[in-house]
Amino acid sequence: MKRIGVFTSGGDAPGMNACIRAIVRAAVYHGVEVYGIHRGFKGMIKGEIYKMDSHSVSNIIQKGGTILRSARSKEFVTPEGRKMAYDQLQKFGIEGLVCIGGDGTFTGANIFFEEFGIPTVGAPGTIDNDLYGTDYTIGYDTAVNTALDAIDKIRDTADSHDRVFFIEVMGRDSGYIAMPCAVGGGAEIVMIPETETTIDEVVDTLRTGWNRSKTSFIVIVAEGDDAGNATEVAAKVQQELPHMDARVTILGHVQRGGAPTAADRMLASQLGIACVEGLLEGRKCEMAGIINGEIVYTPFIDTITKDKLINPNYLKMVNILSV
Amino acid sequence: MKRIGVFTSGGDAPGMNACIRAIVRAAVYHGVEVYGIHRGFKGMIKGEIYKMDSHSVSNIIQKGGTILRSARSKEFVTPEGRKMAYDQLQKFGIEGLVCIGGDGTFTGANIFFEEFGIPTVGAPGTIDNDLYGTDYTIGYDTAVNTALDAIDKIRDTADSHDRVFFIEVMGRDSGYIAMPCAVGGGAEIVMIPETETTIDEVVDTLRTGWNRSKTSFIVIVAEGDDAGNATEVAAKVQQELPHMDARVTILGHVQRGGAPTAADRMLASQLGIACVEGLLEGRKCEMAGIINGEIVYTPFIDTITKDKLINPNYLKMVNILSV
Amino acid sequence: MKRIGVFTSGGDAPGMNACIRAIVRAAVYHGVEVYGIHRGFKGMIKGEIYKMDSHSVSNIIQKGGTILRSARSKEFVTPEGRKMAYDQLQKFGIEGLVCIGGDGTFTGANIFFEEFGIPTVGAPGTIDNDLYGTDYTIGYDTAVNTALDAIDKIRDTADSHDRVFFIEVMGRDSGYIAMPCAVGGGAEIVMIPETETTIDEVVDTLRTGWNRSKTSFIVIVAEGDDAGNATEVAAKVQQELPHMDARVTILGHVQRGGAPTAADRMLASQLGIACVEGLLEGRKCEMAGIINGEIVYTPFIDTITKDKLINPNYLKMVNILSV
Amino acid sequence: MKRIGVFTSGGDAPGMNACIRAIVRAAVYHGVEVYGIHRGFKGMIKGEIYKMDSHSVSNIIQKGGTILRSARSKEFVTPEGRKMAYDQLQKFGIEGLVCIGGDGTFTGANIFFEEFGIPTVGAPGTIDNDLYGTDYTIGYDTAVNTALDAIDKIRDTADSHDRVFFIEVMGRDSGYIAMPCAVGGGAEIVMIPETETTIDEVVDTLRTGWNRSKTSFIVIVAEGDDAGNATEVAAKVQQELPHMDARVTILGHVQRGGAPTAADRMLASQLGIACVEGLLEGRKCEMAGIINGEIVYTPFIDTITKDKLINPNYLKMVNILSV
Repeated sequence: MKRIGVFTSGGDAPGMNACIRAIVRAAVYHGVEVYGIHRGFKGMIKGEIYKMDSHSVSNIIQKGGTILRSARSKEFVTPEGRKMAYDQLQKFGIEGLVCIGGDGTFTGANIFFEEFGIPTVGAPGTIDNDLYGTDYTIGYDTAVNTALDAIDKIRDTADSHDRVFFIEVMGRDSGYIAMPCAVGGGAEIVMIPETETTIDEVVDTLRTGWNRSKTSFIVIVAEGDDAGNATEVAAKVQQELPHMDARVTILGHVQRGGAPTAADRMLASQLGIACVEGLLEGRKCEMAGIINGEIVYTPFIDTITKDKLINPNYLKMVNILSV
Repeated sequence: MKRIGVFTSGGDAPGMNACIRAIVRAAVYHGVEVYGIHRGFKGMIKGEIYKMDSHSVSNIIQKGGTILRSARSKEFVTPEGRKMAYDQLQKFGIEGLVCIGGDGTFTGANIFFEEFGIPTVGAPGTIDNDLYGTDYTIGYDTAVNTALDAIDKIRDTADSHDRVFFIEVMGRDSGYIAMPCAVGGGAEIVMIPETETTIDEVVDTLRTGWNRSKTSFIVIVAEGDDAGNATEVAAKVQQELPHMDARVTILGHVQRGGAPTAADRMLASQLGIACVEGLLEGRKCEMAGIINGEIVYTPFIDTITKDKLINPNYLKMVNILSV
Repeated sequence: MKRIGVFTSGGDAPGMNACIRAIVRAAVYHGVEVYGIHRGFKGMIKGEIYKMDSHSVSNIIQKGGTILRSARSKEFVTPEGRKMAYDQLQKFGIEGLVCIGGDGTFTGANIFFEEFGIPTVGAPGTIDNDLYGTDYTIGYDTAVNTALDAIDKIRDTADSHDRVFFIEVMGRDSGYIAMPCAVGGGAEIVMIPETETTIDEVVDTLRTGWNRSKTSFIVIVAEGDDAGNATEVAAKVQQELPHMDARVTILGHVQRGGAPTAADRMLASQLGIACVEGLLEGRKCEMAGIINGEIVYTPFIDTITKDKLINPNYLKMVNILSV
Repeated sequence: MKRIGVFTSGGDAPGMNACIRAIVRAAVYHGVEVYGIHRGFKGMIKGEIYKMDSHSVSNIIQKGGTILRSARSKEFVTPEGRKMAYDQLQKFGIEGLVCIGGDGTFTGANIFFEEFGIPTVGAPGTIDNDLYGTDYTIGYDTAVNTALDAIDKIRDTADSHDRVFFIEVMGRDSGYIAMPCAVGGGAEIVMIPETETTIDEVVDTLRTGWNRSKTSFIVIVAEGDDAGNATEVAAKVQQELPHMDARVTILGHVQRGGAPTAADRMLASQLGIACVEGLLEGRKCEMAGIINGEIVYTPFIDTITKDKLINPNYLKMVNILSV
């Protein structure tokens, strides 16, 4: 393999740039040419493809977002679109791909390989951490720390005012972000998609605390919780406990940005190198991850179809720690 | 005057603790006893009053919130409530008060003086900065920096994705927080209560930028803007520009917390000392502020009734800088 | 076991407070009384022992340092000193101990058990991460992120000025802090105690870069490197490369402070609970750690005598990434 | 004036990029062409001059350092060097200059105008704040906040360990950085070039505190203090108080980097616009500053020869607050 392409796809995550840097420099180190494809599959179809070298990735390791940008592509879903993408890669002589993204990205890369034989090795880049095949995804540690920093600030005001704060963090299908935010933020209650927490339980916990003269509470709500998002949960609770001063904060996209943490830079750097070396060793349609400190390659199909379960002990921790 | 009381009231603001520290230590320095009144007028009525000394305020200068806590008091609005508060102060031998708060606090203190002759000198503690009689209020600089830090993070993801972000910052009646966020956050548009910005103008600016192939935008919306809050503005704009990917972020109470900035610690420390020295000099019903680097005392009544105007040049700056 | 004591010892580390909180609350949760011993073995001898409850550890999870404080004790090294400590524990009816500290702490606890039969279970609290029996020690992740944040700031000025920065990070015997700082900080060179890097090699790398018109460099030096500390290394290099503008920064104790990261709060919380539960299960002279995501108890003697080796791949990473 | 050049010179400071952005966009706004000159006078002589437009300064407002870089130039000190610089400007058709820097930069620009008639208007870019003609210099607020953040971290460990920390902050000739660090960092002692503080006084203050059972202290030392730098001061004090555990931290170049604060972005943006508008109005050899909220232009010669005095009340504040 003489020439490879690199792109980012799906939601951006802090550490993607650190990973791009590692991919480009590992390619250079191994004597392989590397091209950056802008805006994911969309730019691949349009030929937004540029040569990169060691210098192209100077001074980006600490930057949030992705210098290669990201986009949704409706065209790549169609055979015609993928053919156009293939033609562009042919035109530039690109023989293999490294992508950073999530299950949507890997699904596309899988189909693309079946149709055109272009191998892809991918790195897990998503703040959600809900990808099978790696202990942590790139961006997750940063997102949690960003959320926690905001929760620390809210606690200042919660403590000063006898208030209940309902804080919504990201997590459409999982409590991966919510859980360390609850433990690390000293929350009394955490509501995540993986477990059922009824409004009645929340009301009970708050009422019990209140009766023990505890007057400020923090409730962490994963955006995809069954009981509703933070705004909905707060409204229902407020109805039962009208004397409580409830406030809602939705952290939103702030969680996607910022300089990556040390752990995310290490992870992104290791996986970027592993992707390139995996591709050069002949791997295809596999994601590089780190499990128990070791690089592990997992077939894309497994990362898409298998579930990664959250540690069940964490909920018990929240209970012990809010005693 | 031998013994004074100190309390915080209204919304909490970063730097209140630094101010409490300065008040307590200035009292000790000048040989005056000082009592902390918890939860503002509410705690004054209930007699939540405790002796403080130099050690009580160790290691709090860097902390958000207020160790004296804050609360709304419905009782203090009534003559009976104020009588109870007066009785408590009598009981503890408190002859003068220093408060940290906003116009609501000062209004209460004014009435209280008229009825019972207890003098109060106040420091402006509110993140909103819309108090006449001081260039800056305690907490304002921190709130702006907190909001700006969040905007920096959002920009990472805005740039990576061709998105329009509508970011709501605090400011029910003023654009004091919104304006430096817009200038410092490199926003294309800022919507503040002081000036009229129509949805049509916003749409025009975005469309013009879009046609010049600019694809990511940041719009700062003060929560009290006439065109609506960020959610409402975004919905209206999206209707006109359905091809744009619009996202809303509401920073909320995160802006109230966090370690105060250097400027807020300096301001809070200077004003805390000025309050105590003003009270000892015989001032009553005045707020200590800093204007052009000098300590200035302004009657409470002026801080309540007069408007502080935002610098009109700032809007022009946003226009020049988003060229 | 009805009553236990908790103390911190050795150098303080961010997350110690989060761990104290977990220990106290886990004790309360399991119906055991808990006493805080101030200033480690020193305070144990002096009887600085105070009852704690759930409320004693409110709002400390985010704080750096240790509310129980830490100190060196010369007396505890003597049999007489330990006897005094034992008498104090007897007086308070303390039957078991939980400590947070490093190998010095564990050595003391081991001897103390042999002499007086008071069992101790410990949590690894040190920013250095060089303790056998756990993947990470409490405080390590925070220290690395603090150092990295400083390195990011220095890089701004390095890039603006064509300079070589020699940045000294903590690590008397190991490169655990230096290594992720080098990878994550985009350093060209890293000098750690575990591997020999000669001044000649450093000079060669800088000269080669310089000749390829690279003009700003970052060299991370662990304080205990064989070639000398950062000041010494810089002086030697400057002698060989007098045209280079070399600057030295010594991060020092800044690395010990600050709010703990999410990872450190999670680790500290898990280990605090594990210490209490281990002690109640009858463990003695063991350290609770986390290896590959699982709680593991390791005899104190092993944590003291066995070496934890740094991942040898990391050095190769620095080489690839600075291509 | 149809075409202007912009450059940065001297030590870099956070906010220089925000100022460059404002200069470039103000030029575009007013229909003037703008060229970036790299590496100050050095690059001017070598012709490192490149056209800039609105897009050249996208997404730099939050970045530390200077994208135009900075350098010392020995050649510009000579008439021959300045002639070469003039020839380059002629070649590019540059009729006026905007610079960001300190008194060295302004001195050079003054001589250059006298010899070749090229007018320069400058913005004060230095973290030291010791320039006459403006209340604050660009970068000062950020540097103080960076130092304060480090001091907050050190205090965590100081409080945990009964230690005296001597923290050296920047300030060769002034205490501008040291003073708010002392007030905001809750230091017991501050040593600045403007006032004499003898070692005996320091020892007295520490001994008095110690005897009142205060056991942790923070002493802020401006690098240029008469009594020596922090290392020297600590050694002398330690000799008198050998029982105290003294530690030294030198913050160094960390203070030069980092994302600029809101205040620095506002200041830099206002001054950047003011420089361009001043130049277009015919000003020459003047520095734009802000005094009491108003733009003020001061002749370069005054900024070089006149002293800006630190507020004498600040030292009294430190005494009151460390009661």
